[in-house]
Amino acid sequence: MSASPYVTSITRQSDDFPGWYTDVVLKAELADYSPVRGCMIIRPYGYAIWESMRDELDRLIKATGHKNMYFPLFVPRSLLLKEAEHVEGFDPQVAWVTRAGGRDLDEPLAIRPTSEALIAEGVKDWIQSYRDLPLLMNLWNNVVRWELRTRLFLRTTEFLWQEAHTFHASEEEAAAEVATGLECYRVVAEEWLAIPVISGRKTEHEKFPGAVYTRAIEAMMRDTKALQAGTSHMLGQNFSKAAGIEFLDRDNVRRAPFGTSWGFSTRMVGATVMAHGDEFGLVLPPRVAPIQVAVVPIFRSEEDRVRVAEAIDRVLAALGEDAAGRAVRVEVDWRDASPGFKFNHWELRGVPFRLEIGPRDLAAGQAVLVKRTDRSREAVPLEALPHTLPGRLDAYQRELFERALAFRDANTRRVDTYEAFRTVVEEQGGFILAPWCGDGGCERRVAEETGATIRIIPDDSPDEAAACIVDGRPSERRVLFARAY
Amino acid sequence: MSASPYVTSITRQSDDFPGWYTDVVLKAELADYSPVRGCMIIRPYGYAIWESMRDELDRLIKATGHKNMYFPLFVPRSLLLKEAEHVEGFDPQVAWVTRAGGRDLDEPLAIRPTSEALIAEGVKDWIQSYRDLPLLMNLWNNVVRWELRTRLFLRTTEFLWQEAHTFHASEEEAAAEVATGLECYRVVAEEWLAIPVISGRKTEHEKFPGAVYTRAIEAMMRDTKALQAGTSHMLGQNFSKAAGIEFLDRDNVRRAPFGTSWGFSTRMVGATVMAHGDEFGLVLPPRVAPIQVAVVPIFRSEEDRVRVAEAIDRVLAALGEDAAGRAVRVEVDWRDASPGFKFNHWELRGVPFRLEIGPRDLAAGQAVLVKRTDRSREAVPLEALPHTLPGRLDAYQRELFERALAFRDANTRRVDTYEAFRTVVEEQGGFILAPWCGDGGCERRVAEETGATIRIIPDDSPDEAAACIVDGRPSERRVLFARAY
Repeated sequence: MSASPYVTSITRQSDDFPGWYTDVVLKAELADYSPVRGCMIIRPYGYAIWESMRDELDRLIKATGHKNMYFPLFVPRSLLLKEAEHVEGFDPQVAWVTRAGGRDLDEPLAIRPTSEALIAEGVKDWIQSYRDLPLLMNLWNNVVRWELRTRLFLRTTEFLWQEAHTFHASEEEAAAEVATGLECYRVVAEEWLAIPVISGRKTEHEKFPGAVYTRAIEAMMRDTKALQAGTSHMLGQNFSKAAGIEFLDRDNVRRAPFGTSWGFSTRMVGATVMAHGDEFGLVLPPRVAPIQVAVVPIFRSEEDRVRVAEAIDRVLAALGEDAAGRAVRVEVDWRDASPGFKFNHWELRGVPFRLEIGPRDLAAGQAVLVKRTDRSREAVPLEALPHTLPGRLDAYQRELFERALAFRDANTRRVDTYEAFRTVVEEQGGFILAPWCGDGGCERRVAEETGATIRIIPDDSPDEAAACIVDGRPSERRVLFARAY
Repeated sequence: MSASPYVTSITRQSDDFPGWYTDVVLKAELADYSPVRGCMIIRPYGYAIWESMRDELDRLIKATGHKNMYFPLFVPRSLLLKEAEHVEGFDPQVAWVTRAGGRDLDEPLAIRPTSEALIAEGVKDWIQSYRDLPLLMNLWNNVVRWELRTRLFLRTTEFLWQEAHTFHASEEEAAAEVATGLECYRVVAEEWLAIPVISGRKTEHEKFPGAVYTRAIEAMMRDTKALQAGTSHMLGQNFSKAAGIEFLDRDNVRRAPFGTSWGFSTRMVGATVMAHGDEFGLVLPPRVAPIQVAVVPIFRSEEDRVRVAEAIDRVLAALGEDAAGRAVRVEVDWRDASPGFKFNHWELRGVPFRLEIGPRDLAAGQAVLVKRTDRSREAVPLEALPHTLPGRLDAYQRELFERALAFRDANTRRVDTYEAFRTVVEEQGGFILAPWCGDGGCERRVAEETGATIRIIPDDSPDEAAACIVDGRPSERRVLFARAY
C-alpha cells in the first residue's frame, strides 16, 4: 500500500475550479440535482455536515439567550409590500402561491425569501412594554429565492438556514446584537469549519434590502475568490415602523423598537468544500467531519481477515470515548473492494485520517495512521490509539485553519492605483485592500470593469489617508475588494 | 402559601374541551395565530417541546440505520400526477406556485404535501442494484396541506414533521420496515410523551393515498376522543413503478423495489396538551418539559431575599447534573410578582414540580416540592434535592403514563349491537371495540350516522367470530371505533 496518487475521476482543481467543485459535491455524495430547477437534494453525507455546523451554531445562539421558534412559510403580498426597500430588493426573486385548495387565492402568498416582514407583523401583540424587550428569536427553516444561475449549496432556489430576529428598546443595544450575531458566525466559521474570516461592514449598495446597515464575514476560497459567510443586519426602526410596532418605554413614551436580523445558510457547506478541498477531493475539518477516521482492513487470507477483524473490534471498543467524553467518529470499511479503491473513496470524502490495519501491522502491534492532507504515515501502537487520535484530530483542525490563514495572507495584496488594481484582479486574483472614497459610482465602475466588488469595509482596517483608486478623492481607510461567489 | 385553587383565566376543560385547548395553547404561549390563514407561529415554549420529541425521535430513527437528508419543497405537477391514487388524495389540498422570479411558470409547482412523488423520482439513479438496498432515508421538513378548518397544532395548513422514506428489495423487508417506523413512534409516544397508544392497521378507506396499507398508532385524549399519533405506510411497488425505478436483483432480474414511508408531526405537541392537561392548564411529562422544576422564592424583607437567593444558588450548583449525567432543567422565577401569580403561571405551563423556598423553609433546612398534578406537598431537605429530584421526575413520568392508561381503559367499551353503539357514542364517547364485517359501506354508514370512524384494526384484537354491528355479516375480530381529531 504505497502513498502514490490513485486515479481520481474528478476534474483537476487547478484546471477548472468550478468543475472541480461540482464534481466533488456530486461524487462525494454531498448533494445531487433534483427534478426541480435550481433546487438540490442534500444527501446524507452533506446533510450530516450541515447538521454538525447547525447544532454548533444552535448551541452558540441559545447560549446568547435566543430562543428557537417557528414562523410560517408564507408571507401575504400586502405584508411584503410594507417596507418599500425590502420589497424592491426581494420582489424579483419571490415565488408566489396563487392557487390553493382548489381555488385561486384572493391575495398571492410569497414563499418567504426571508421573514422580516412576517415577523414584524407577527410580534406586534407581544411587544407592549420595555419589559417585553429585548425579544430574541431564532428560526431554523427553508427559504426560497428564485435565482437565475444556481450552483449546488452556494446558490440554490431553496436553501436551509438559520435566521435570528430581535427587537430592542435602544439603538445601542441593537448594534451590540448585530455584533453578537456576527460573532456567533465567526466562531462557527473559524473554530468549527476552520475557515478564517474577515468581519466588517457592507457598503450601502451591498447591504440587505430594508436594513440601515449590514455587517458580514468574508472568507477566501482555494481559488482566491471571496465568499460571504454570514450577514448580520441593523434594521433600525424600519420594519417596526412599517408594521406599526410600538412599546411603552420607561419614560412612558411610546416608541418603535430597533430590530436586527442575521442569517447563516447551507451555502457554508459549499464554503467548507471550497476553503479546504484539494485535487483528491474534500478535506474536512475534524469537528464537522461525519467520519473522522476511516479504518481500512488489509488482508489476503481468511485467517488474516479474522485476526484483523478482532484487532479492529478491540480498537473500536477502546475508542468509544476519550477522556473528555467525546466519541471519535470511526467507520470501518469492510466492503468487498481493494484497499486502493477504499483509500480513494475516503480521500474523496475528506475523512481526516485513515487507519490501515494489516497482518504485518498486527505482528508489530500497531496500525498505520495516514493523514488526509499530506498523506503522511505514522505507525501508532494499537493500545496507544485511544489517547493518540483525539490529539491528532485537534492538531489537524488547527492545521487546516492555519493553512487557510496562510493561504489568505499570501493572496491578499495592498494596491494604490487603479492600474495596479486591474492587473492584480486579472493576473493574480485574491483579496485586494485599496483606498476608496465611499462613492457608489466608483464602486459600480470597479465592479463593471473588473468583476471585483467591495466585499467589506473591514473592522480592523486602520485609518489611513489616501486617494480613491478610481477618482482620486480622499479615502479614509482601505476596503476589501475581490471577485466573489 | 396554601394549595387552594388560584383563579385561572382559561375555559373550563369539563365545559368546553376545544375552548380549553385553544386557551391553553395560546395562554401557555405554545403557539399563536399568524397573519397567514391556517398557519401558526410556534412560540419558544411550544417549539422547545417539539425540539424535545424531535430530538428523541431523531435519535431512535438514526439508531435503526436511517440517514437524514433533504429533498426540495417543490413537487412539479407532472410528478405528482404519476401515482393516480396519490394525486387524487392530495390534489384538493395542494398549494400551487404558478409565478416566480417575475414570470409565470411553464409548469405549476406544488408545495409538498408529502414527498413520496418527488423522492421516487429523485432516487432513481441511486438504486441500480440490490447492493443499493435497503435505502433508508429520513427528512425533517415542513409540508403544506390546504385545510378548510384548522386548529393550532392539530390541523394547520403548514406543519413541521419527520417523513421517513425507504426502498427495499423484498416485500417482507418493507413490511418489517413499516413496523420499525411505527415502533419508533410508539416509543416516543409512550416513553417520552407518556401517551399510551394502540397500534394497528387502517381500513382501506382511511389508508394513505397511494399506499397498499397503512399502519398507525391511536391515542385517547382527555375528552375521550381519538387522535392519530403517527402513521407508517406500505407503499409496495406503487411509487417505484410509477417513477420507473428498477434494480438488478441477485438473480439478475430487474425489479421495482418496495417502498415505505412514515410520518410524525407537530400535531403531537397538541396531543401532549390534550392527553394530560387539566383545569389548570398544561400537564407536561418531565422528559418533554422544557422546564422540569420551577423555583419560586418566598420572601418579604430584603434580608430574607438575600438568604433565599443564596440557598437557591447552592441548590442550583448541586443540581447541575445527577449521577447519570442528566441536568435537571430548572428555572428560578425572580420576577416582581406575587408567589400566587407565579404558582398559577407555572401550573398553566405544566411544569411538573415547583419548589418553594422561603425563610421558614430555610430555618428548617428544607424546601417544599409541590407536584403539578395533585398539588401534593413534600418537604425535602435542601441537601437531599440533587438525588431526590431525578427520582421524583421519573416517578412523575410513569404516573402520567399510568394515569392516561387507566383513563383509556375506563373509557374503552365492548359493544355488540348498533343500537348500543349509538348510545355509547352519544352518551359516553371513548373507544368502542365492536365487530365489523370489513365492508366499506358499513364503515361509511357508521361514520355518517354517528361521527365515529374506524380508527384502527388493532394488532392485539384477538380472533373472535361475531356479527357486524351494522349489517350482521360475519366479523372475524373487533375493530376500534371512536370520534377523532
